[in-house]
Amino acid sequence: MQMFTRADILAMEDRFRRNFVNCLPGMKPAMLCGTVDLNGVTNVSIVSQVIHVGANPPFMGVLFRPHTVERHSVENIGLTGFFSLNQIPETHIAQAHQTSARYPREVSEFEATGLTPLFEGNVPAPVVAESPVRIILRAVERRILAVNQTELVIGAVEAVWVNPDALSEDGFLDPGKNGISAVAGLDGYLSGGEWIRFAYAKPDTPPRRKG
Amino acid sequence: MQMFTRADILAMEDRFRRNFVNCLPGMKPAMLCGTVDLNGVTNVSIVSQVIHVGANPPFMGVLFRPHTVERHSVENIGLTGFFSLNQIPETHIAQAHQTSARYPREVSEFEATGLTPLFEGNVPAPVVAESPVRIILRAVERRILAVNQTELVIGAVEAVWVNPDALSEDGFLDPGKNGISAVAGLDGYLSGGEWIRFAYAKPDTPPRRKG
Repeated sequence: MQMFTRADILAMEDRFRRNFVNCLPGMKPAMLCGTVDLNGVTNVSIVSQVIHVGANPPFMGVLFRPHTVERHSVENIGLTGFFSLNQIPETHIAQAHQTSARYPREVSEFEATGLTPLFEGNVPAPVVAESPVRIILRAVERRILAVNQTELVIGAVEAVWVNPDALSEDGFLDPGKNGISAVAGLDGYLSGGEWIRFAYAKPDTPPRRKG
Repeated sequence: MQMFTRADILAMEDRFRRNFVNCLPGMKPAMLCGTVDLNGVTNVSIVSQVIHVGANPPFMGVLFRPHTVERHSVENIGLTGFFSLNQIPETHIAQAHQTSARYPREVSEFEATGLTPLFEGNVPAPVVAESPVRIILRAVERRILAVNQTELVIGAVEAVWVNPDALSEDGFLDPGKNGISAVAGLDGYLSGGEWIRFAYAKPDTPPRRKG
Protein backbone atom coordinates (compact mmCIF):
# COMPACT_ATOMS: atom_id res chain seq x y z
CA MET A 1 0.00 0.00 0.00
CA GLN A 2 1.16 3.49 -0.83
CA MET A 3 0.67 6.16 1.85
CA PHE A 4 -0.16 9.82 1.31
CA THR A 5 -0.22 12.21 4.26
CA ARG A 6 -2.28 15.39 4.30
CA ALA A 7 0.91 17.30 3.44
CA ASP A 8 1.52 14.99 0.46
CA ILE A 9 -2.03 15.63 -0.79
CA LEU A 10 -1.69 19.41 -0.37
CA ALA A 11 1.57 19.27 -2.36
CA MET A 12 0.07 17.33 -5.29
CA GLU A 13 -0.26 18.94 -8.72
CA ASP A 14 -3.79 20.44 -8.96
CA ARG A 15 -5.33 18.11 -11.52
CA PHE A 16 -3.80 15.03 -9.87
CA ARG A 17 -5.17 16.09 -6.49
CA ARG A 18 -8.64 16.81 -7.93
CA ASN A 19 -8.81 13.32 -9.46
CA PHE A 20 -7.32 11.62 -6.41
CA VAL A 21 -9.55 13.22 -3.75
CA ASN A 22 -12.69 12.93 -5.90
CA CYS A 23 -11.97 9.19 -6.15
CA LEU A 24 -11.76 8.63 -2.39
CA PRO A 25 -15.48 7.76 -1.94
CA GLY A 26 -15.13 5.05 -4.63
CA MET A 27 -18.38 4.91 -6.57
CA LYS A 28 -20.70 7.87 -6.39
CA PRO A 29 -24.30 8.35 -7.53
CA ALA A 30 -24.56 9.61 -11.12
CA MET A 31 -27.55 11.93 -11.30
CA LEU A 32 -28.75 14.75 -13.51
CA CYS A 33 -30.08 17.82 -11.71
CA GLY A 34 -32.80 19.64 -13.66
CA THR A 35 -33.81 23.26 -13.00
CA VAL A 36 -35.30 26.26 -14.81
CA ASP A 37 -34.83 30.01 -14.39
CA LEU A 38 -37.56 32.67 -14.35
CA ASN A 39 -37.13 33.24 -18.11
CA GLY A 40 -37.86 29.58 -18.82
CA VAL A 41 -34.23 28.68 -19.66
CA THR A 42 -33.79 25.07 -18.55
CA ASN A 43 -30.60 23.78 -16.99
CA VAL A 44 -29.33 20.25 -16.46
CA SER A 45 -26.05 19.30 -14.79
CA ILE A 46 -24.45 16.10 -13.63
CA VAL A 47 -24.08 15.81 -9.85
CA SER A 48 -22.47 13.06 -7.78
CA GLN A 49 -22.47 14.57 -4.29
CA VAL A 50 -25.96 13.18 -3.60
CA ILE A 51 -27.11 11.61 -0.34
CA HIS A 52 -30.19 9.85 0.94
CA VAL A 53 -31.25 11.97 3.96
CA GLY A 54 -34.38 10.20 5.18
CA ALA A 55 -37.13 7.82 4.11
CA ASN A 56 -40.12 8.85 6.25
CA PRO A 57 -40.69 11.57 5.25
CA PRO A 58 -38.50 11.23 2.14
CA PHE A 59 -35.59 13.67 1.76
CA MET A 60 -32.46 13.78 -0.42
CA GLY A 61 -29.49 16.15 -0.36
CA VAL A 62 -27.05 17.54 -2.94
CA LEU A 63 -23.82 19.36 -2.17
CA PHE A 64 -23.04 22.23 -4.55
CA ARG A 65 -19.78 24.11 -5.07
CA PRO A 66 -19.17 27.50 -3.42
CA HIS A 67 -20.57 30.77 -4.78
CA THR A 68 -17.13 31.67 -6.10
CA VAL A 69 -17.94 29.81 -9.35
CA GLU A 70 -21.01 30.07 -11.62
CA ARG A 71 -23.64 27.70 -10.33
CA HIS A 72 -26.72 27.93 -12.51
CA SER A 73 -28.44 24.95 -10.84
CA VAL A 74 -28.30 26.26 -7.30
CA GLU A 75 -29.21 29.79 -8.41
CA ASN A 76 -32.29 28.41 -10.18
CA ILE A 77 -33.25 26.46 -7.05
CA GLY A 78 -33.08 29.75 -5.16
CA LEU A 79 -35.45 31.33 -7.68
CA THR A 80 -38.04 28.56 -8.03
CA GLY A 81 -37.62 26.44 -4.90
CA PHE A 82 -37.60 23.23 -6.95
CA PHE A 83 -35.18 20.84 -8.67
CA SER A 84 -35.18 17.36 -10.10
CA LEU A 85 -32.73 14.49 -9.72
CA ASN A 86 -32.63 11.81 -12.39
CA GLN A 87 -30.68 8.54 -12.44
CA ILE A 88 -28.43 8.19 -15.49
CA PRO A 89 -28.65 5.11 -17.70
CA GLU A 90 -25.33 3.98 -19.15
CA THR A 91 -26.77 4.55 -22.64
CA HIS A 92 -26.58 8.30 -21.88
CA ILE A 93 -23.31 8.77 -19.99
CA ALA A 94 -21.75 10.74 -22.87
CA GLN A 95 -24.58 13.32 -22.82
CA ALA A 96 -24.56 13.36 -19.00
CA HIS A 97 -20.81 14.02 -18.87
CA GLN A 98 -21.16 16.75 -21.50
CA THR A 99 -23.52 18.70 -19.19
CA SER A 100 -20.42 19.45 -17.06
CA ALA A 101 -19.06 21.77 -19.78
CA ARG A 102 -19.22 25.48 -18.94
CA TYR A 103 -22.11 26.59 -21.10
CA PRO A 104 -23.15 30.25 -20.84
CA ARG A 105 -26.19 31.00 -18.70
CA GLU A 106 -28.52 31.58 -21.66
CA VAL A 107 -27.80 28.15 -23.19
CA SER A 108 -29.90 25.16 -22.05
CA GLU A 109 -27.70 22.11 -21.48
CA PHE A 110 -30.72 20.03 -22.51
CA GLU A 111 -30.54 21.44 -26.04
CA ALA A 112 -26.74 21.52 -26.11
CA THR A 113 -26.35 17.88 -25.11
CA GLY A 114 -29.43 16.29 -26.66
CA LEU A 115 -31.29 15.42 -23.47
CA THR A 116 -35.07 15.97 -23.26
CA PRO A 117 -36.72 18.13 -20.56
CA LEU A 118 -40.19 17.14 -19.37
CA PHE A 119 -42.38 19.36 -17.21
CA GLU A 120 -45.06 17.73 -15.06
CA GLY A 121 -48.05 19.87 -14.10
CA ASN A 122 -47.01 23.30 -12.81
CA VAL A 123 -43.80 22.15 -11.12
CA PRO A 124 -41.00 24.63 -11.99
CA ALA A 125 -38.30 21.98 -12.58
CA PRO A 126 -37.86 19.72 -15.60
CA VAL A 127 -37.17 16.00 -15.27
CA VAL A 128 -35.03 14.14 -17.83
CA ALA A 129 -37.12 12.03 -20.22
CA GLU A 130 -34.23 9.61 -20.87
CA SER A 131 -33.99 8.67 -17.17
CA PRO A 132 -35.72 5.55 -15.77
CA VAL A 133 -35.88 7.09 -12.23
CA ARG A 134 -36.96 10.77 -12.11
CA ILE A 135 -37.49 12.65 -8.86
CA ILE A 136 -39.04 16.08 -8.18
CA LEU A 137 -37.78 17.79 -5.01
CA ARG A 138 -38.80 20.93 -3.15
CA ALA A 139 -35.87 22.69 -1.46
CA VAL A 140 -36.54 22.77 2.29
CA GLU A 141 -33.14 23.41 3.90
CA ARG A 142 -29.89 24.99 2.70
CA ARG A 143 -26.65 24.86 4.66
CA ILE A 144 -23.37 26.53 3.79
CA LEU A 145 -20.57 24.35 5.21
CA ALA A 146 -18.06 26.31 7.25
CA VAL A 147 -15.06 24.29 6.07
CA ASN A 148 -15.18 25.44 2.45
CA GLN A 149 -18.43 27.32 1.70
CA THR A 150 -19.94 24.44 -0.27
CA GLU A 151 -23.75 24.39 -0.02
CA LEU A 152 -25.87 21.43 1.00
CA VAL A 153 -29.39 21.66 -0.40
CA ILE A 154 -31.94 19.31 1.15
CA GLY A 155 -35.04 18.53 -0.90
CA ALA A 156 -38.33 16.96 0.12
CA VAL A 157 -39.28 14.30 -2.42
CA GLU A 158 -42.53 15.50 -3.99
CA ALA A 159 -42.97 12.98 -6.82
CA VAL A 160 -41.12 10.06 -8.40
CA TRP A 161 -41.47 8.33 -11.76
CA VAL A 162 -39.91 4.90 -12.14
CA ASN A 163 -39.67 2.20 -14.75
CA PRO A 164 -42.06 -0.40 -13.25
CA ASP A 165 -40.01 -3.32 -14.67
CA ALA A 166 -37.15 -2.47 -12.28
CA LEU A 167 -39.31 -2.12 -9.15
CA SER A 168 -39.27 -5.23 -6.94
CA GLU A 169 -42.19 -6.33 -4.76
CA ASP A 170 -40.36 -5.07 -1.66
CA GLY A 171 -39.60 -1.58 -3.01
CA PHE A 172 -36.06 -2.26 -4.30
CA LEU A 173 -35.26 -0.40 -7.53
CA ASP A 174 -32.75 -2.58 -9.36
CA PRO A 175 -29.95 -0.46 -10.91
CA GLY A 176 -29.03 -3.42 -13.12
CA LYS A 177 -32.53 -3.69 -14.62
CA ASN A 178 -32.51 0.07 -15.19
CA GLY A 179 -28.99 -0.05 -16.70
CA ILE A 180 -27.88 2.69 -14.28
CA SER A 181 -24.31 4.05 -14.30
CA ALA A 182 -22.24 5.50 -11.44
CA VAL A 183 -19.38 8.01 -11.26
CA ALA A 184 -15.82 7.53 -10.04
CA GLY A 185 -13.78 10.68 -9.58
CA LEU A 186 -14.53 13.39 -12.13
CA ASP A 187 -14.80 11.41 -15.35
CA GLY A 188 -15.13 7.65 -14.75
CA TYR A 189 -18.48 5.99 -15.51
CA LEU A 190 -19.65 2.47 -14.69
CA SER A 191 -20.75 0.13 -17.46
CA GLY A 192 -22.34 -3.23 -16.63
CA GLY A 193 -22.08 -5.13 -13.37
CA GLU A 194 -24.52 -7.30 -11.45
CA TRP A 195 -26.37 -6.73 -8.18
CA ILE A 196 -26.38 -9.12 -5.26
CA ARG A 197 -28.81 -8.68 -2.36
CA PHE A 198 -28.28 -9.77 1.22
CA ALA A 199 -30.86 -10.57 3.91
CA TYR A 200 -31.32 -8.20 6.88
CA ALA A 201 -28.21 -8.60 9.08
CA LYS A 202 -28.60 -9.99 12.62
CA PRO A 203 -25.86 -10.45 15.23
CA ASP A 204 -26.48 -14.19 15.66
CA THR A 205 -26.89 -15.12 12.00
CA PRO A 206 -24.10 -15.35 9.41
CA PRO A 207 -24.56 -13.10 6.35
CA ARG A 208 -26.70 -14.77 3.67
CA ARG A 209 -27.82 -13.81 0.20
CA LYS A 210 -31.42 -12.94 -0.52
CA GLY A 211 -33.42 -14.53 -3.36
CA MET B 1 -43.41 5.01 -16.15
CA GLN B 2 -45.15 4.58 -12.82
CA MET B 3 -45.75 7.73 -10.76
CA PHE B 4 -45.64 8.02 -6.98
CA THR B 5 -46.66 11.30 -5.33
CA ARG B 6 -45.40 12.35 -1.90
CA ALA B 7 -48.73 11.15 -0.46
CA ASP B 8 -48.25 7.75 -2.16
CA ILE B 9 -44.77 7.44 -0.61
CA LEU B 10 -46.00 8.44 2.84
CA ALA B 11 -48.75 5.79 2.56
CA MET B 12 -46.33 2.97 1.61
CA GLU B 13 -45.75 0.02 3.96
CA ASP B 14 -42.66 0.85 6.09
CA ARG B 15 -40.21 -1.69 4.69
CA PHE B 16 -41.30 -1.00 1.10
CA ARG B 17 -40.81 2.77 1.63
CA ARG B 18 -37.38 2.27 3.25
CA ASN B 19 -36.19 0.22 0.28
CA PHE B 20 -37.79 2.51 -2.29
CA VAL B 21 -36.48 5.84 -0.93
CA ASN B 22 -33.02 4.43 -0.16
CA CYS B 23 -32.84 3.37 -3.83
CA LEU B 24 -33.60 6.84 -5.23
CA PRO B 25 -29.92 7.92 -5.49
CA GLY B 26 -29.18 4.80 -7.57
CA MET B 27 -25.69 3.63 -6.68
CA LYS B 28 -24.14 4.84 -3.46
CA PRO B 29 -20.59 4.63 -2.11
CA ALA B 30 -19.97 1.46 -0.08
CA MET B 31 -17.58 2.35 2.73
CA LEU B 32 -16.66 0.99 6.12
CA CYS B 33 -16.40 3.56 8.91
CA GLY B 34 -13.84 2.61 11.59
CA THR B 35 -13.78 4.12 15.08
CA VAL B 36 -12.69 3.22 18.62
CA ASP B 37 -14.04 4.18 22.06
CA LEU B 38 -12.00 5.29 25.08
CA ASN B 39 -11.85 1.67 26.36
CA GLY B 40 -10.24 0.52 23.14
CA VAL B 41 -13.35 -1.25 21.79
CA THR B 42 -13.18 -0.92 18.02
CA ASN B 43 -16.26 -0.35 15.85
CA VAL B 44 -16.78 -0.74 12.13
CA SER B 45 -20.02 -0.02 10.28
CA ILE B 46 -21.07 0.16 6.68
CA VAL B 47 -22.03 3.66 5.50
CA SER B 48 -23.35 4.80 2.14
CA GLN B 49 -24.32 8.42 2.83
CA VAL B 50 -20.80 9.61 1.96
CA ILE B 51 -19.93 12.73 -0.05
CA HIS B 52 -16.81 14.33 -1.43
CA VAL B 53 -16.81 17.83 0.12
CA GLY B 54 -13.65 19.37 -1.28
CA ALA B 55 -10.27 18.55 -2.83
CA ASN B 56 -8.04 21.44 -1.76
CA PRO B 57 -7.90 21.08 1.17
CA PRO B 58 -9.36 17.55 1.11
CA PHE B 59 -12.64 16.98 3.00
CA MET B 60 -15.26 14.23 3.02
CA GLY B 61 -18.64 14.03 4.74
CA VAL B 62 -20.82 11.26 6.19
CA LEU B 63 -24.46 11.60 7.19
CA PHE B 64 -25.41 9.63 10.32
CA ARG B 65 -28.86 8.73 11.65
CA PRO B 66 -30.49 10.79 14.43
CA HIS B 67 -29.63 10.36 18.12
CA THR B 68 -32.90 8.46 18.65
CA VAL B 69 -31.09 5.21 17.70
CA GLU B 70 -27.78 3.79 19.01
CA ARG B 71 -24.98 5.18 16.96
CA HIS B 72 -21.68 3.82 18.18
CA SER B 73 -19.69 5.28 15.29
CA VAL B 74 -20.76 8.87 15.75
CA GLU B 75 -20.46 8.63 19.54
CA ASN B 76 -16.88 7.38 19.15
CA ILE B 77 -16.11 10.25 16.77
CA GLY B 78 -17.34 12.61 19.49
CA LEU B 79 -14.95 10.98 21.97
CA THR B 80 -11.80 10.73 19.85
CA GLY B 81 -12.29 13.28 17.07
CA PHE B 82 -11.24 10.74 14.43
CA PHE B 83 -12.73 8.14 12.08
CA SER B 84 -11.69 6.15 9.04
CA LEU B 85 -13.47 5.48 5.76
CA ASN B 86 -12.48 2.41 3.75
CA GLN B 87 -13.63 1.35 0.28
CA ILE B 88 -15.17 -2.14 0.20
CA PRO B 89 -13.87 -4.74 -2.25
CA GLU B 90 -16.53 -7.09 -3.61
CA THR B 91 -14.64 -9.99 -2.05
CA HIS B 92 -15.79 -8.67 1.35
CA ILE B 93 -19.37 -7.49 0.79
CA ALA B 94 -20.79 -10.25 3.04
CA GLN B 95 -18.66 -9.11 6.00
CA ALA B 96 -19.36 -5.45 5.22
CA HIS B 97 -23.14 -6.04 5.16
CA GLN B 98 -22.91 -8.02 8.40
CA THR B 99 -21.51 -4.93 10.20
CA SER B 100 -25.04 -3.44 9.90
CA ALA B 101 -26.34 -5.96 12.46
CA ARG B 102 -27.15 -4.45 15.87
CA TYR B 103 -24.24 -5.72 17.93
CA PRO B 104 -24.09 -4.58 21.58
CA ARG B 105 -21.74 -1.73 22.38
CA GLU B 106 -19.08 -3.96 23.99
CA VAL B 107 -18.75 -6.17 20.89
CA SER B 108 -16.29 -5.14 18.17
CA GLU B 109 -17.85 -5.61 14.73
CA PHE B 110 -14.30 -6.28 13.49
CA GLU B 111 -14.12 -9.47 15.56
CA ALA B 112 -17.77 -10.36 14.99
CA THR B 113 -17.55 -10.12 11.20
CA GLY B 114 -13.96 -11.19 10.57
CA LEU B 115 -12.56 -7.87 9.37
CA THR B 116 -9.11 -6.74 10.53
CA PRO B 117 -8.49 -3.41 12.33
CA LEU B 118 -5.17 -1.68 11.74
CA PHE B 119 -3.95 1.27 13.81
CA GLU B 120 -1.42 3.64 12.28
CA GLY B 121 0.81 5.58 14.64
CA ASN B 122 -1.16 7.21 17.47
CA VAL B 123 -4.29 7.92 15.42
CA PRO B 124 -7.38 6.90 17.47
CA ALA B 125 -9.28 5.28 14.58
CA PRO B 126 -8.65 1.89 12.97
CA VAL B 127 -8.55 1.40 9.22
CA VAL B 128 -9.72 -1.86 7.60
CA ALA B 129 -6.82 -4.06 6.47
CA GLU B 130 -8.94 -5.75 3.76
CA SER B 131 -9.64 -2.42 2.04
CA PRO B 132 -7.55 -1.22 -0.95
CA VAL B 133 -8.38 2.46 -0.22
CA ARG B 134 -8.17 3.48 3.48
CA ILE B 135 -8.66 7.04 4.68
CA ILE B 136 -8.07 8.63 8.09
CA LEU B 137 -10.22 11.69 8.82
CA ARG B 138 -10.28 14.24 11.61
CA ALA B 139 -13.78 15.52 12.41
CA VAL B 140 -13.83 19.28 11.80
CA GLU B 141 -17.52 20.18 11.46
CA ARG B 142 -20.76 18.59 12.64
CA ARG B 143 -24.20 19.74 11.50
CA ILE B 144 -27.55 18.48 12.70
CA LEU B 145 -30.00 18.84 9.81
CA ALA B 146 -33.22 20.60 10.79
CA VAL B 147 -35.43 18.44 8.56
CA ASN B 148 -34.92 15.19 10.49
CA GLN B 149 -32.08 15.52 13.02
CA THR B 150 -29.63 13.45 10.97
CA GLU B 151 -26.03 14.52 11.55
CA LEU B 152 -23.53 15.45 8.86
CA VAL B 153 -19.94 14.93 10.03
CA ILE B 154 -17.26 16.58 7.90
CA GLY B 155 -13.76 15.16 8.14
CA ALA B 156 -10.44 16.59 7.03
CA VAL B 157 -8.46 13.90 5.18
CA GLU B 158 -5.33 13.31 7.28
CA ALA B 159 -3.84 10.26 5.54
CA VAL B 160 -4.69 7.83 2.74
CA TRP B 161 -3.37 4.36 1.87
CA VAL B 162 -4.04 3.07 -1.62
CA ASN B 163 -3.19 0.02 -3.68
CA PRO B 164 -0.59 1.54 -6.07
CA ASP B 165 -1.66 -0.77 -8.94
CA ALA B 166 -5.04 1.03 -9.15
CA LEU B 167 -3.60 4.57 -9.09
CA SER B 168 -3.35 6.14 -12.56
CA GLU B 169 -0.71 8.67 -13.57
CA ASP B 170 -3.29 11.46 -13.37
CA GLY B 171 -4.54 10.61 -9.87
CA PHE B 172 -7.56 8.49 -10.88
CA LEU B 173 -8.15 5.53 -8.53
CA ASP B 174 -9.75 2.84 -10.69
CA PRO B 175 -12.61 1.10 -8.80
CA GLY B 176 -12.45 -1.74 -11.34
CA LYS B 177 -8.77 -2.46 -10.65
CA ASN B 178 -9.52 -2.35 -6.91
CA GLY B 179 -12.57 -4.60 -7.34
CA ILE B 180 -14.68 -2.06 -5.45
CA SER B 181 -18.39 -2.62 -4.79
CA ALA B 182 -21.23 -0.09 -4.37
CA VAL B 183 -24.56 -0.10 -2.52
CA ALA B 184 -28.09 0.20 -3.89
CA GLY B 185 -30.83 0.73 -1.34
CA LEU B 186 -30.24 -1.07 1.95
CA ASP B 187 -28.96 -4.44 0.80
CA GLY B 188 -27.92 -4.45 -2.87
CA TYR B 189 -24.20 -4.72 -3.71
CA LEU B 190 -22.46 -4.31 -7.04
CA SER B 191 -20.37 -7.13 -8.48
CA GLY B 192 -18.27 -6.59 -11.60
CA GLY B 193 -18.68 -3.82 -14.16
CA GLU B 194 -16.22 -1.82 -16.23
CA TRP B 195 -15.16 1.81 -16.04
CA ILE B 196 -15.15 4.20 -18.98
CA ARG B 197 -13.46 7.60 -18.75
CA PHE B 198 -14.36 10.74 -20.65
CA ALA B 199 -12.18 13.74 -21.54
CA TYR B 200 -12.80 17.10 -19.83
CA ALA B 201 -16.09 18.46 -21.24
CA LYS B 202 -16.02 21.69 -23.27
CA PRO B 203 -19.01 23.52 -24.78
CA ASP B 204 -17.65 23.41 -28.34
CA THR B 205 -16.41 19.82 -28.37
CA PRO B 206 -18.57 16.69 -28.52
CA PRO B 207 -18.09 14.24 -25.64
CA ARG B 208 -15.20 11.85 -26.25
CA ARG B 209 -13.71 8.94 -24.40
CA LYS B 210 -10.32 9.18 -22.78
CA GLY B 211 -7.57 6.63 -23.30
